[in-house]
Amino acid sequence: MRELKIFSGRANPDLAHEICDHLHLAPAAITLGKFPDGENFCKLDEDVRGRDVFLIQPTCPPVNDSLMELLIMIDCCKRASAARITPVIPYFGYARQDRKDEGRVPITAKLVANLITRAGADRVLTMDLHAAQIQGFFDVPVDHLYAAPVLNDYFVNRGLDPEDIVVCSPDEGSIKRAVGHAKRLGGSLAILHKRRSSALEVQQNTIIGGPVEGRVALMFDDMISTAGSICGAARLIRDHGAKEIHIAATHGIFCGPAIERIQAAPIDSIAVTNTLPLPPEKQLPNAVQLSVAPLLATAIKRIHHDQSISELFQSK
Amino acid sequence: MRELKIFSGRANPDLAHEICDHLHLAPAAITLGKFPDGENFCKLDEDVRGRDVFLIQPTCPPVNDSLMELLIMIDCCKRASAARITPVIPYFGYARQDRKDEGRVPITAKLVANLITRAGADRVLTMDLHAAQIQGFFDVPVDHLYAAPVLNDYFVNRGLDPEDIVVCSPDEGSIKRAVGHAKRLGGSLAILHKRRSSALEVQQNTIIGGPVEGRVALMFDDMISTAGSICGAARLIRDHGAKEIHIAATHGIFCGPAIERIQAAPIDSIAVTNTLPLPPEKQLPNAVQLSVAPLLATAIKRIHHDQSISELFQSK
Amino acid sequence: MRELKIFSGRANPDLAHEICDHLHLAPAAITLGKFPDGENFCKLDEDVRGRDVFLIQPTCPPVNDSLMELLIMIDCCKRASAARITPVIPYFGYARQDRKDEGRVPITAKLVANLITRAGADRVLTMDLHAAQIQGFFDVPVDHLYAAPVLNDYFVNRGLDPEDIVVCSPDEGSIKRAVGHAKRLGGSLAILHKRRSSALEVQQNTIIGGPVEGRVALMFDDMISTAGSICGAARLIRDHGAKEIHIAATHGIFCGPAIERIQAAPIDSIAVTNTLPLPPEKQLPNAVQLSVAPLLATAIKRIHHDQSISELFQSK
Amino acid sequence: MRELKIFSGRANPDLAHEICDHLHLAPAAITLGKFPDGENFCKLDEDVRGRDVFLIQPTCPPVNDSLMELLIMIDCCKRASAARITPVIPYFGYARQDRKDEGRVPITAKLVANLITRAGADRVLTMDLHAAQIQGFFDVPVDHLYAAPVLNDYFVNRGLDPEDIVVCSPDEGSIKRAVGHAKRLGGSLAILHKRRSSALEVQQNTIIGGPVEGRVALMFDDMISTAGSICGAARLIRDHGAKEIHIAATHGIFCGPAIERIQAAPIDSIAVTNTLPLPPEKQLPNAVQLSVAPLLATAIKRIHHDQSISELFQSK
Amino acid sequence: MRELKIFSGRANPDLAHEICDHLHLAPAAITLGKFPDGENFCKLDEDVRGRDVFLIQPTCPPVNDSLMELLIMIDCCKRASAARITPVIPYFGYARQDRKDEGRVPITAKLVANLITRAGADRVLTMDLHAAQIQGFFDVPVDHLYAAPVLNDYFVNRGLDPEDIVVCSPDEGSIKRAVGHAKRLGGSLAILHKRRSSALEVQQNTIIGGPVEGRVALMFDDMISTAGSICGAARLIRDHGAKEIHIAATHGIFCGPAIERIQAAPIDSIAVTNTLPLPPEKQLPNAVQLSVAPLLATAIKRIHHDQSISELFQSK
Amino acid sequence: MRELKIFSGRANPDLAHEICDHLHLAPAAITLGKFPDGENFCKLDEDVRGRDVFLIQPTCPPVNDSLMELLIMIDCCKRASAARITPVIPYFGYARQDRKDEGRVPITAKLVANLITRAGADRVLTMDLHAAQIQGFFDVPVDHLYAAPVLNDYFVNRGLDPEDIVVCSPDEGSIKRAVGHAKRLGGSLAILHKRRSSALEVQQNTIIGGPVEGRVALMFDDMISTAGSICGAARLIRDHGAKEIHIAATHGIFCGPAIERIQAAPIDSIAVTNTLPLPPEKQLPNAVQLSVAPLLATAIKRIHHDQSISELFQSK
Repeated sequence: MRELKIFSGRANPDLAHEICDHLHLAPAAITLGKFPDGENFCKLDEDVRGRDVFLIQPTCPPVNDSLMELLIMIDCCKRASAARITPVIPYFGYARQDRKDEGRVPITAKLVANLITRAGADRVLTMDLHAAQIQGFFDVPVDHLYAAPVLNDYFVNRGLDPEDIVVCSPDEGSIKRAVGHAKRLGGSLAILHKRRSSALEVQQNTIIGGPVEGRVALMFDDMISTAGSICGAARLIRDHGAKEIHIAATHGIFCGPAIERIQAAPIDSIAVTNTLPLPPEKQLPNAVQLSVAPLLATAIKRIHHDQSISELFQSK
Repeated sequence: MRELKIFSGRANPDLAHEICDHLHLAPAAITLGKFPDGENFCKLDEDVRGRDVFLIQPTCPPVNDSLMELLIMIDCCKRASAARITPVIPYFGYARQDRKDEGRVPITAKLVANLITRAGADRVLTMDLHAAQIQGFFDVPVDHLYAAPVLNDYFVNRGLDPEDIVVCSPDEGSIKRAVGHAKRLGGSLAILHKRRSSALEVQQNTIIGGPVEGRVALMFDDMISTAGSICGAARLIRDHGAKEIHIAATHGIFCGPAIERIQAAPIDSIAVTNTLPLPPEKQLPNAVQLSVAPLLATAIKRIHHDQSISELFQSK
Repeated sequence: MRELKIFSGRANPDLAHEICDHLHLAPAAITLGKFPDGENFCKLDEDVRGRDVFLIQPTCPPVNDSLMELLIMIDCCKRASAARITPVIPYFGYARQDRKDEGRVPITAKLVANLITRAGADRVLTMDLHAAQIQGFFDVPVDHLYAAPVLNDYFVNRGLDPEDIVVCSPDEGSIKRAVGHAKRLGGSLAILHKRRSSALEVQQNTIIGGPVEGRVALMFDDMISTAGSICGAARLIRDHGAKEIHIAATHGIFCGPAIERIQAAPIDSIAVTNTLPLPPEKQLPNAVQLSVAPLLATAIKRIHHDQSISELFQSK
Repeated sequence: MRELKIFSGRANPDLAHEICDHLHLAPAAITLGKFPDGENFCKLDEDVRGRDVFLIQPTCPPVNDSLMELLIMIDCCKRASAARITPVIPYFGYARQDRKDEGRVPITAKLVANLITRAGADRVLTMDLHAAQIQGFFDVPVDHLYAAPVLNDYFVNRGLDPEDIVVCSPDEGSIKRAVGHAKRLGGSLAILHKRRSSALEVQQNTIIGGPVEGRVALMFDDMISTAGSICGAARLIRDHGAKEIHIAATHGIFCGPAIERIQAAPIDSIAVTNTLPLPPEKQLPNAVQLSVAPLLATAIKRIHHDQSISELFQSK
Repeated sequence: MRELKIFSGRANPDLAHEICDHLHLAPAAITLGKFPDGENFCKLDEDVRGRDVFLIQPTCPPVNDSLMELLIMIDCCKRASAARITPVIPYFGYARQDRKDEGRVPITAKLVANLITRAGADRVLTMDLHAAQIQGFFDVPVDHLYAAPVLNDYFVNRGLDPEDIVVCSPDEGSIKRAVGHAKRLGGSLAILHKRRSSALEVQQNTIIGGPVEGRVALMFDDMISTAGSICGAARLIRDHGAKEIHIAATHGIFCGPAIERIQAAPIDSIAVTNTLPLPPEKQLPNAVQLSVAPLLATAIKRIHHDQSISELFQSK
Repeated sequence: MRELKIFSGRANPDLAHEICDHLHLAPAAITLGKFPDGENFCKLDEDVRGRDVFLIQPTCPPVNDSLMELLIMIDCCKRASAARITPVIPYFGYARQDRKDEGRVPITAKLVANLITRAGADRVLTMDLHAAQIQGFFDVPVDHLYAAPVLNDYFVNRGLDPEDIVVCSPDEGSIKRAVGHAKRLGGSLAILHKRRSSALEVQQNTIIGGPVEGRVALMFDDMISTAGSICGAARLIRDHGAKEIHIAATHGIFCGPAIERIQAAPIDSIAVTNTLPLPPEKQLPNAVQLSVAPLLATAIKRIHHDQSISELFQSK
């Protein structure tokens, strides 16, 4: 069996270390950095010839730097004769640009997939893609994991009464996710809906389903970016009488005004995973960061040993 | 300007003729058929050297025959030195197999995109893909049209009172489409939801939103296949007191028990477009077939003349 | 050594089972079928990660269905991380469309080769291609087996007297095959020739070589499709006094009027192999089906174990 | 319309000049040669940016030099931004290595096709490929011309009496060609056949068909290389009493002992075309070189003007 | 003739505007920016269907942002059906990582070339690549311009006496460039050389050639990055008695301590071109920025009109 | 571990045998040659299925024959199912055509790299490329060795006094190489420079640096082709009073007038390696051929065993 080597880019070294700890493996030595003119450099400090190489690098902000560093690492491993190169991309940036919904725009998620393949990736390991169809943007095998069990376990462990729960979809696009979590956690379903009254030309935010009043409201999303919609949703739910509001998302980006917005919103707790790093200035008192390292470590180990990981593909 | 040539495969020649009529153009002569052993043959009876060729062929049932015929036509045009080859695929078969939602399944929609490109297509013109992300399965340009305006116009022309309308989403996955039509047609929104009561282990079909009672219920889908879910939805809506129920979908496949189901369901009218042919045995008294030929003809003309078709990309 | 897995498509499961029996291996579990709208589905019921996978599927009638099923199986295995994927295509459909002998026709055999490669095949195992040059349509390795020894052994075992035999070529294109069999089986050579008398503008069927009179005439072909020319040839040979007429071919397609024609023709026996399935309605009393399963099983075993199969490449 | 430019490699400049004369065009200026170490150099002395470029270069002996020069010319034109590059390869070298008829040999004809495409050819114009399937070795369009009409016209113009003619196939592999010429020129058909008598283990050369005695025997081949088999065939035919023996072939390679053999054989005349150059030492008194320049010139002109050349695809 | 469209990325819009001014053309409208999470967005505000599109974007610092923006613009134009896409990259970032001079490092310049081609570029226009061989990293045509004439003209216009000039190479790697400029400007040649005395294990900076004393020393480089070596060289030259020291380089990156170093060094003037933007904080009193916009504008115009630009390829 | 197989082409079989001797391995059996018409043939006489194959073939004169033989060997091994194919190209022909330094010329070195990859090479092992950037012409891994240590060891073993040595660069382009050797061997540096006096329009050869008088002058180059410039340099150095002149180069091509020139020049000794064969007529009394076989054998062994060869990448 070819030796397993795990290198970490500079996007989320803590996650990489945690994965390596689970595998009882030291991260492989690599020198990464930038020249004074901003160009990335990369040098492998260990031999990868004939090895089974995993490169851990979410393409999180600064996204272009993270992505280019990943591409350069792939080129480096390819030219150093790695037997197999698997980028591990727990957060796949540019995923929301996954289709042309108007003329003259790019499909950047497909471009990124093409760049990763062109650089020399043999397969990809990723998690909670914004759209599952992005798997098909690749012709190399993609192992796509779900953080949902991690999030569900967190709430189960908190001991919530299923009868008390209402799972709220913050908009129409997230309803499938809400249904999935409701199946697992119990509770009823509510959907926040922006209704446009044509007579008055005003938009009215309403809640379909429920009830919300007096319940523990849970809201799930794949990512929290500027937190605008999720905070608006929290306020609406609170206005409708929810007694508690808890937010959970796989990818905690928290960019722009996100932190202030969350602080100002009626949110009791917010849980994200560590697919992205959470620097100190983003660590709120009511926030918790759940680890996907065990899941990723298991997937890497099983991929390396040619064992099935189908049982890890649980979206619920 | 290179000459425009439109060939039709055998999947939907009526649509091709209608498109050609709109363009005041005769369909180009081609000999298509099958040898006694079932292998397709193809011979262009007109020169395509240096021409701008469009091949009209929805990959509708029998899907494998339709697809292979299209691929063979593309190969034929490529080797005959066509300047540009654009398959026009108003209905894109295999679109529902667009991601791996469990282990060890194919992503057939991506496979099909790869086959079309490998055969030699320079670009693709299609309509109402099951998932918009399928555009990104191609690296060649894809012009993606929407039939929604055709469907909306049909209901507008029927003179329904917006206050009377309730747009119903037959399941959680179609809610975005329902919201879109509701924006254009007015009316309130209702979602059919399968709720699983964990205590009793039974599933209960409910309607979220509405109200439905006494209203004219409209349901939209991208395709009607075996009509199972749409007919079930119709019954539920009727049980909730809707006074009229109208169904509209872009792609009318009507396979398996579809026709019997629709006949037995409380459906007042059903409208589909002509992206697929509608043979006599599928023509129901309460059904209407709307034509997308003008839309496709305009798109072909504008593509041929290098004119923008962004204004045709209206999803609402 | 990576584990060997053999999956069968639905084109010729009997052959697949027979091959597996020779290898003391159960066919790997797979779910194949069609949705009500005719789209194929495929799900591997066993893990193929890192395995050496062979997919047994002649692309026989219904050829488009057989081919698409094969392509989908390849895509499925590729995305499920098979180490190597080898389609085993004992009968390669569309092989006769292997060149442009007039303008504006496709080279469908090359198209099919491209589709198979694009889907993800790493190599191909096939048998008695209509033209050996089709090997060169692939850039992946092709192992090309010959059924001729199976056919020759059959006649040798029948104990024919070489002095009695005349090997007849049914047309000018098959003479090389006839020469090959005559070398192995002995006997003289005769060629059926359509001579066009320019003076009278009539065509005259003649036999060059021979003699045929009183001899046991053997005719070989790579495939029997509608059986038109072979039955015409049999009648001509009988008219010239042959005492017995035996036909042998690798691929027994028997489509269209084939069975009636053969029944009506002066053919004493007809032998084909099991590269294609022979359903009951095609099983004639004077027909025998010879098995190529031992040959294919040996080839698969040797390919899997990286052993030479050159000795299996005997065309005579 | 993009300007037409014709460059000639150094393999057959006379043919290139003749083609250009027919097109009333001067060959485009190019500097070609070899450095002292044997590396080819190439410099275009005319601009090709946006032009429609044809490169005339049969890959005749010295085949590796001819081929590399062609590849370098293609690379040069591609990097100089030619709009379209069409190698014109009247004689396609390595064509006989078109399949694996034993283990562990290359398919060099496919390799060459891949090299030509990889270098940047957009299409290919060629003539009398050794096997028509080689067209399918390319994915770019191939226009494949036949010299047969040129050869037939030559014999028709000699005023032979069809009743006097016997068209002889020098071996079993050439019988289809013989049949084709016989159809056009009239006459009967004879096939030279090497019969192996198993009893005596000796090989006996016989003639099937005919008769040959007292007739004017015509033999056609696609190429004459060492002339061994054609000269042996001529002797056998003469032994059978033919009164005249005429040979015709598209490609006159005349390598090794060819010239001495032909001089020693009972051949009345021998006709080849100018797809290859015929240096003075190969010009025999009873030989004639027919020109394919008009045919190639017409093809180039029609390709350049996007006109059909199907009517030039006459194999008879 | 297809319409010419020039879009500018955000790396050097001033250069783009200047080029457009020379072409009497308005830059095409485009919306570029970043989402709050740092992902780039791009929307063409003009139709490019069938147009000849040039995208002006040096991949200068922040290099990863500049490069990704360029790649996204290419994807966007490709999917919007541009007829031809030509990135104009006056400064090609990552060019110094053009080979593996030790094990386990990437060849990032080749990676970048592959990314640009994969995104969909049809050709590239660039200037003063760090190594001319980078042209060969592309398979698409590359038009490679030289700024040397612009720099030489600048010194010629300053009216220096050739007898007074000494062209100094700041290190051994730049001597070819120095020789080139000396040929054009006259003057003698001097090379700065770091000599390592093995006895003493110290390194000694010396000047080979010259003389330098009392002369006007000119130093040329392709780029000035941190200005360390060029400033060291200037001090050494001054120590050897040069009366004036002038520096010229194509690409003025001026990163890290460059500005302070230059201010502290005995440099009389420093000239760079506008391939990179020169923000106010980098504009030194003794610096001049020369424009390559006329050269690039001419190249674009000639490429668009399929006219030769060979005469623009002057490296001296 | 897959078995190692080493085949030799016909370009330098002595080197191949020497490499095999170092590896205690017999060269694998292969039949190579030319048909009478000059086409190469190739047949592997040993099985390569699943083996790790190295093909030793410098692309030295006759370069086109050497290159085509290599490409055919690659195709042959690929179709015979080799697990990995590594061409070992100690001398890489066409390397000097590595960039466009004027319009309308090819980049033949890139073309050759593309051909090698297209034929099916999985990686490349080469030595002293004319430009290190040629590594980047490949997307497959390239292991690039340096012969400099072999050359340096040779001089070190001759016991030269470092204080006596002057390393002379024969022109401005070779100065980096000279600096490298001077670092290792000691001694001072001199550069031969062609100065063009603009007043008199004559060119004057001068020496910069030094001194040369009374010293042992060493000159290094990557290859000696026609030996024109190296012999001219030797004369100039002798004119300046050098007491001994020694030449060393990796690749001894010695084409055209090279041997006569060297015989006539004031050269005391000349050392080359055996990357190219040195036929008897090129073996001069004052010449020595150093072997790179140990270096290549070590590299092959380490590549085969997936061991690092970074330590072999010493350019000094």
